[in-house]
Amino acid sequence: MPIKTVISLTTDFGTRGPFAGILKGVILGINPDVRIVDLCHDIEPQNIYEASVFLAMSYKYFPPGSIHLAIVDPEVGSKRRPVLVVADNHYFIGPDNGIFTHIYKESHEILNVIHITSEHYFLPQQGATFHGRDVFAPVAAWFSRGLESNSLGDVITDYVSLPIREPKMISDGAMEGEILYIDTFGNAITNFNALHLNELLSGRKRNIKVMCKGNQFSLARTYLDGRDKGPSVLINSFGYLELFLYKGNISKQADINSSDKAVIMAG
Amino acid sequence: MPIKTVISLTTDFGTRGPFAGILKGVILGINPDVRIVDLCHDIEPQNIYEASVFLAMSYKYFPPGSIHLAIVDPEVGSKRRPVLVVADNHYFIGPDNGIFTHIYKESHEILNVIHITSEHYFLPQQGATFHGRDVFAPVAAWFSRGLESNSLGDVITDYVSLPIREPKMISDGAMEGEILYIDTFGNAITNFNALHLNELLSGRKRNIKVMCKGNQFSLARTYLDGRDKGPSVLINSFGYLELFLYKGNISKQADINSSDKAVIMAG
Amino acid sequence: MPIKTVISLTTDFGTRGPFAGILKGVILGINPDVRIVDLCHDIEPQNIYEASVFLAMSYKYFPPGSIHLAIVDPEVGSKRRPVLVVADNHYFIGPDNGIFTHIYKESHEILNVIHITSEHYFLPQQGATFHGRDVFAPVAAWFSRGLESNSLGDVITDYVSLPIREPKMISDGAMEGEILYIDTFGNAITNFNALHLNELLSGRKRNIKVMCKGNQFSLARTYLDGRDKGPSVLINSFGYLELFLYKGNISKQADINSSDKAVIMAG
Repeated sequence: MPIKTVISLTTDFGTRGPFAGILKGVILGINPDVRIVDLCHDIEPQNIYEASVFLAMSYKYFPPGSIHLAIVDPEVGSKRRPVLVVADNHYFIGPDNGIFTHIYKESHEILNVIHITSEHYFLPQQGATFHGRDVFAPVAAWFSRGLESNSLGDVITDYVSLPIREPKMISDGAMEGEILYIDTFGNAITNFNALHLNELLSGRKRNIKVMCKGNQFSLARTYLDGRDKGPSVLINSFGYLELFLYKGNISKQADINSSDKAVIMAG
Repeated sequence: MPIKTVISLTTDFGTRGPFAGILKGVILGINPDVRIVDLCHDIEPQNIYEASVFLAMSYKYFPPGSIHLAIVDPEVGSKRRPVLVVADNHYFIGPDNGIFTHIYKESHEILNVIHITSEHYFLPQQGATFHGRDVFAPVAAWFSRGLESNSLGDVITDYVSLPIREPKMISDGAMEGEILYIDTFGNAITNFNALHLNELLSGRKRNIKVMCKGNQFSLARTYLDGRDKGPSVLINSFGYLELFLYKGNISKQADINSSDKAVIMAG
Repeated sequence: MPIKTVISLTTDFGTRGPFAGILKGVILGINPDVRIVDLCHDIEPQNIYEASVFLAMSYKYFPPGSIHLAIVDPEVGSKRRPVLVVADNHYFIGPDNGIFTHIYKESHEILNVIHITSEHYFLPQQGATFHGRDVFAPVAAWFSRGLESNSLGDVITDYVSLPIREPKMISDGAMEGEILYIDTFGNAITNFNALHLNELLSGRKRNIKVMCKGNQFSLARTYLDGRDKGPSVLINSFGYLELFLYKGNISKQADINSSDKAVIMAG
């Protein structure tokens, strides 16, 4: 099997500690040639769903054959399984707790989920709180050296998938969704995408009205477009509706937070 | 043209999202061998001037031939141009919005600014909000593989440069400058450097008095020198006057923030 | 001497500035092939002891022969010495201010401390505030190219070691320790390890009671074990007692901070 050259890291470890660095030390001790990329270490603590969203936004921008290590793992040390997911010529390694939910949903080609049981690839001693170091990082590093996926364990079909939080019609011409996450700028990314807009408008060319926390948001094509419009909304480069305030912070200004409801009305 | 081996990244993306990681995925998909270095992802949101200051402080410490990708881009998706700047045997890629102001001012050798128009180096689809991913990262990665700079577009001379905020004489023997930024320690870096001090003192050997927010700052040579002095000031390793409190946080203690005024008096 | 392939970085530089990035630029200019890993840049400002704890937790997970650059350096520019520490087939470079205290204590094999005096490996000009850039990074990079350690200077034995803050018996069957640091989850890591528990229990199989800030903590094996227990405590994967709240933040909830006292009672 070809050697994989990139391992990306997605965790909720934050920066107050040496934990993400230790993952890298373990990986480089097993495969000194692999490239390691931090995707995100500031996943909201224990927010498995957010990690799943970020992974699905990102993996396709990495080279084919990349390994994506994802560790948001509040049940570490219990019986939850470590898994390898093979999808769209990418590899995902992490706990079987739903962290790959959006990969399961969005991948188009062969999807294989393997329960990782080959403990000889783990570190010799495993603690109860840091399987990133003891299990996931060493497995990813060994796998990057060219293992076949079936050498890690057997295929399973009862892997954990979380309910996807999709917008839903709440009346004729109105759809309710929610805020997926707030970015560094305070922009509020919703779970509305082009498919939902099409469903709402049913092919008719009409305007839409976007409401959140009592504010109405003006449609814009770019951030600059929103310059004189106050609270604004655009379709971002991942295809999702995003609430913003030009050179401002709409999250702080309008007290909009993750999981808040947003409503789109046709008309 | 020789292959460039390092790409540095300077953005205001912060850490709440996979955005900086996606840049790296795109780059490694085009040039798997280039080294990627995070210079700073915590530029104050939309603060183009701060990014320009940080770039000018830093680039000369990188190997000749390095590419510096800089993305603070509030007008992304509008008609502002993408540019390549060639200066002092370094390369800078980013939006033409003034983010290379201090490079234009401080570079000593040949300076060339190229409007990047060769869209075949962009990702096939470009969204309206993330040209870092769709334009700048792929161009930087292709360029790092050994392109000539003129293969990216034509030279322009009407590139955007922001007004440099220089200290100015406010009376005989007094000069007013400002705080450029506050670092992690709460130290307040001013825009006064040795040239300004020379201008103020006009070659006469005299003492100086530094004031900011009603505090007087004692001169010190090192941080340790300020141990028993309270609010102190030294010339830092980039040649700028820096206000500090030994093992303290002068920004918090004296409520000193970016853009606040500072005054130096001879005598 | 063999070429060392990994340099890890531990600093209190934070992310508000280009400082950690500049270290990497300097290193890559001297050794373009070395791998650089961020261990932690969010050491509490000037907290030398915390850096020492994080280094001792981490280094053994890196490949043998790694170089660990550690820069928490409030006395930069004064006469404090730069040192190279050789311990357990790892190399440590930083200021002689106690930052390697736990390495001195815990390393099992040959320990050599060298006062770095070979200034021809420094950058040509040294400022008074950033020896990370001017001294430590270039020395680490040159050293990674295969220098012998004795080419950097002479062995010293009067290196600085900080007092280790160990738990102590405060009565028969009660031991007082303290909180070493708070991690991203708000978990409070204490300085109690298995040795201290053995000392407390003196081989007798008894239960223990853990108290901190007026809260009693229930024993758990994993985080999940603490799900229905409120404030909980486990032995973490570094062998230390760690206070936590399942999917919560015990630091915020119980106002527990670094250096707070914790007491363990047998019985």
